[in-house]
Amino acid sequence: MADVLNGEPYPSTPQELFKSITAQGEIVRSLKAEKAPKDEIDSAVKQLLSLKINYKEVTGQDYNADSPPTNSRPNNSGEPGTTEGEEDFVDPWTVQTSSAKGIDYDKLIVRFGSSKIDKTLIDRIERVIGQKPHHFLRRGIFFSHRDMNNILDAYENKKPFYLYTGRGPSSEAMHVGHLIPFIFTKWLQDVFNVPLVIQMTDDEKYLWKELTLEQAYGYTIENAKDIIACGFDINKTFIFSDLEYMGSSPGFYKNVVKIQKHVTFNQVKGIFGFTDSDCIGKISFPAIQAAPSFSNSFPQIFKDRTDIQCLIPCAIDQDPYFRMTRDVAPKIGYPKPALLHSSFFPALQGAQTKMSASDPNSSIFLTDTAKQIKNKVNKHAFSGGKDTIEEHRQLGGNCDIDVSFMYLTFFLEDDDKLEQIRQDYTSGAMLTGELKKTLIEVLQPLIANHQARRKEITEDIVKQFMTPRKLFYDFQ
Amino acid sequence: MADVLNGEPYPSTPQELFKSITAQGEIVRSLKAEKAPKDEIDSAVKQLLSLKINYKEVTGQDYNADSPPTNSRPNNSGEPGTTEGEEDFVDPWTVQTSSAKGIDYDKLIVRFGSSKIDKTLIDRIERVIGQKPHHFLRRGIFFSHRDMNNILDAYENKKPFYLYTGRGPSSEAMHVGHLIPFIFTKWLQDVFNVPLVIQMTDDEKYLWKELTLEQAYGYTIENAKDIIACGFDINKTFIFSDLEYMGSSPGFYKNVVKIQKHVTFNQVKGIFGFTDSDCIGKISFPAIQAAPSFSNSFPQIFKDRTDIQCLIPCAIDQDPYFRMTRDVAPKIGYPKPALLHSSFFPALQGAQTKMSASDPNSSIFLTDTAKQIKNKVNKHAFSGGKDTIEEHRQLGGNCDIDVSFMYLTFFLEDDDKLEQIRQDYTSGAMLTGELKKTLIEVLQPLIANHQARRKEITEDIVKQFMTPRKLFYDFQ
Repeated sequence: MADVLNGEPYPSTPQELFKSITAQGEIVRSLKAEKAPKDEIDSAVKQLLSLKINYKEVTGQDYNADSPPTNSRPNNSGEPGTTEGEEDFVDPWTVQTSSAKGIDYDKLIVRFGSSKIDKTLIDRIERVIGQKPHHFLRRGIFFSHRDMNNILDAYENKKPFYLYTGRGPSSEAMHVGHLIPFIFTKWLQDVFNVPLVIQMTDDEKYLWKELTLEQAYGYTIENAKDIIACGFDINKTFIFSDLEYMGSSPGFYKNVVKIQKHVTFNQVKGIFGFTDSDCIGKISFPAIQAAPSFSNSFPQIFKDRTDIQCLIPCAIDQDPYFRMTRDVAPKIGYPKPALLHSSFFPALQGAQTKMSASDPNSSIFLTDTAKQIKNKVNKHAFSGGKDTIEEHRQLGGNCDIDVSFMYLTFFLEDDDKLEQIRQDYTSGAMLTGELKKTLIEVLQPLIANHQARRKEITEDIVKQFMTPRKLFYDFQ
Repeated sequence: MADVLNGEPYPSTPQELFKSITAQGEIVRSLKAEKAPKDEIDSAVKQLLSLKINYKEVTGQDYNADSPPTNSRPNNSGEPGTTEGEEDFVDPWTVQTSSAKGIDYDKLIVRFGSSKIDKTLIDRIERVIGQKPHHFLRRGIFFSHRDMNNILDAYENKKPFYLYTGRGPSSEAMHVGHLIPFIFTKWLQDVFNVPLVIQMTDDEKYLWKELTLEQAYGYTIENAKDIIACGFDINKTFIFSDLEYMGSSPGFYKNVVKIQKHVTFNQVKGIFGFTDSDCIGKISFPAIQAAPSFSNSFPQIFKDRTDIQCLIPCAIDQDPYFRMTRDVAPKIGYPKPALLHSSFFPALQGAQTKMSASDPNSSIFLTDTAKQIKNKVNKHAFSGGKDTIEEHRQLGGNCDIDVSFMYLTFFLEDDDKLEQIRQDYTSGAMLTGELKKTLIEVLQPLIANHQARRKEITEDIVKQFMTPRKLFYDFQ
């Protein structure tokens, strides 16, 4: 191909532009080396110049191969800034906004070059599966996608595809926010009846955190229990630890090394903001998160088939990994994975940040008791209500910034009831205390039921899910 | 530790100094962050300043964290230069000297910070093993080492150790020079009766060359036959393909990721001259060549023992990998590998370069017929003789630059005969034609015997050598 974009949306961040210029430069060089036809070279050079002009517009600086743009993190300490008017920042390690409404997802779609999940797509999903789409879709919690129409085409044509999602096991403690992609993925597995692979990136956590390999693997096992408790079908689901699976699969490492051959340090620098002081493990890790996107990474499931497309439901902060994966896929002869992106689950304190597993009051944990849930919601859930009852009755509350209401959009399945609450709270008919009570009454049984299901998950069941094996599904 | 050198020889190359400064800087920062005692910080700062002064002396420039010294390759094309007076250059991909005598190995020992294999060490080896050391040791072909005395201590104290060597399978064609480390390693295995692991870096060759994974793996199998034909004991030898073993060992990847966590891009940039345009596979590969240095990479052989020291016989150009490995070892709680370094086997055209598998006339290949050997030696072996017989008789030949004589030092085992040839050729009593004839008569049966042994190596035998399994040896 003579154009690095190859039909992909035009890059808009300095990092993406830098990456595209580097790649397009390589294309021009190889066309010249191959003595390609003049018009082909001219067109590639034109594309290169256009990218460079855009780069200068966006960064105010000329392109310089030796100095990629820094991934302008909000500040060096990793602490979220609070200055008004700052741009949102989203990458796999930092999510930051200054707005109490949370990240501006419409802007993020433009910036990441993905597509909005609009009514047309939701309607098509409903038609294809013959049932009401999950409320995460109906309510815009999964709000962005890449190539979802390809997946629906495949399903309609009875062509196989599979699901891939994952988790970085950084501690034993998982909170309700961590369940979002798994709840949705289970629904996808049920309606499409397809195999699912779940990657536990314990190697990543070992590389990024102060953990031993044994601790990271221990978290994999504990987190796997919570994931299994979401109800996945053991006949259609394979959960794997990177640390373990790399050493027990004939196909996984081969794909990792294929991907690693086709991604340069300049590229991961641009996409992930790595620096020369980062360890070589971090630098090469993106290939390990990319590899499960390709079906022959799982020969026990798909044999040596390389043509089975993958659909990845994940939070939008993981998209950089899969933008990179989609860049590489055609170079190594594999289909690009499709994606469904979710918004972030807000911290109790407000939608400015993601929840933190290290702050017990920032979220509802899967181990919380009914009493803890009640106290946390009452004490910590940021309210969009007014300061006094009188004022609230008169002016009404603000659902857009009220964390209890946001949580209800995630977990209260009844659309009518949710709409009623919105109206009552907005009008002032419903008080903050009543709203919180409703949320508590939704969360308490949800968590209690999860805990009951998790209690049934024995080490042996975990082992079964984590054993590389054949899966049962329709298109075998 | 407050000193990055930690007993290691003081770094002398710009690359090593840069790396030490970076590491020492990190030590100073962490001491300050931990609020360590003032004298400890002062001593670390002093060491840092001393390194920076040395860096300026060696490079003529101030240390700048953002611009590591380039690994000043002789020129960009990769072609060997021939200008007189240039410094020798040695790294895993390029070996270059302007001297017909070959690399100046004494200088290389100083530059790499290794130790000379001197008479004292050779005498100790003879005492310890109770037999005459291999002629590769007696003749200085293996000329440099790290920590060989530790290995001899271990052997004397009946403590276990193991051997590790390897090959990058870049083509089916192996030449006699490729056999040197294997011939020597077989001798070490015989005299010490220890297990041996042989790494085939087919992943490396895939990353560096225009090869498919299948081609690289195919070369592994073909090259393994030539290696097995050297006579290794199947009960004590495990040969592995990286592409295959990574996916079949529970211990290997865990060590790879441990190493990758403790090496930064700055470090591999300094050691190997990688750039931002290199693929992330190359950047992380050094950890894969390092991992077999640690015994728990082979749980089927050593179970979970991490304390069994490793001895690596290899050509000196591989030392950068193991300098890095020795840096990392104490950080992850493993013993540093010991090394025995060989000099380079000269090309037929002269000792200025290593032989090249891509030029059939640059060396004697293991597939050459008796006739090809005769023709190649007669036609291409660079001669240290004089232009006319009269002149030669009068002035004598120069063994130091004569490739036929060099080859005899590798392959003619009889010390007395070799010494006689040296005297006769130097005096002019022996003519170049006679010297070449002697070499041909040594090489022809050597290659024919190798071919006969290789013919006996079936796919099944290769498979046995390459199956992860228990090995038999004394200290189990």
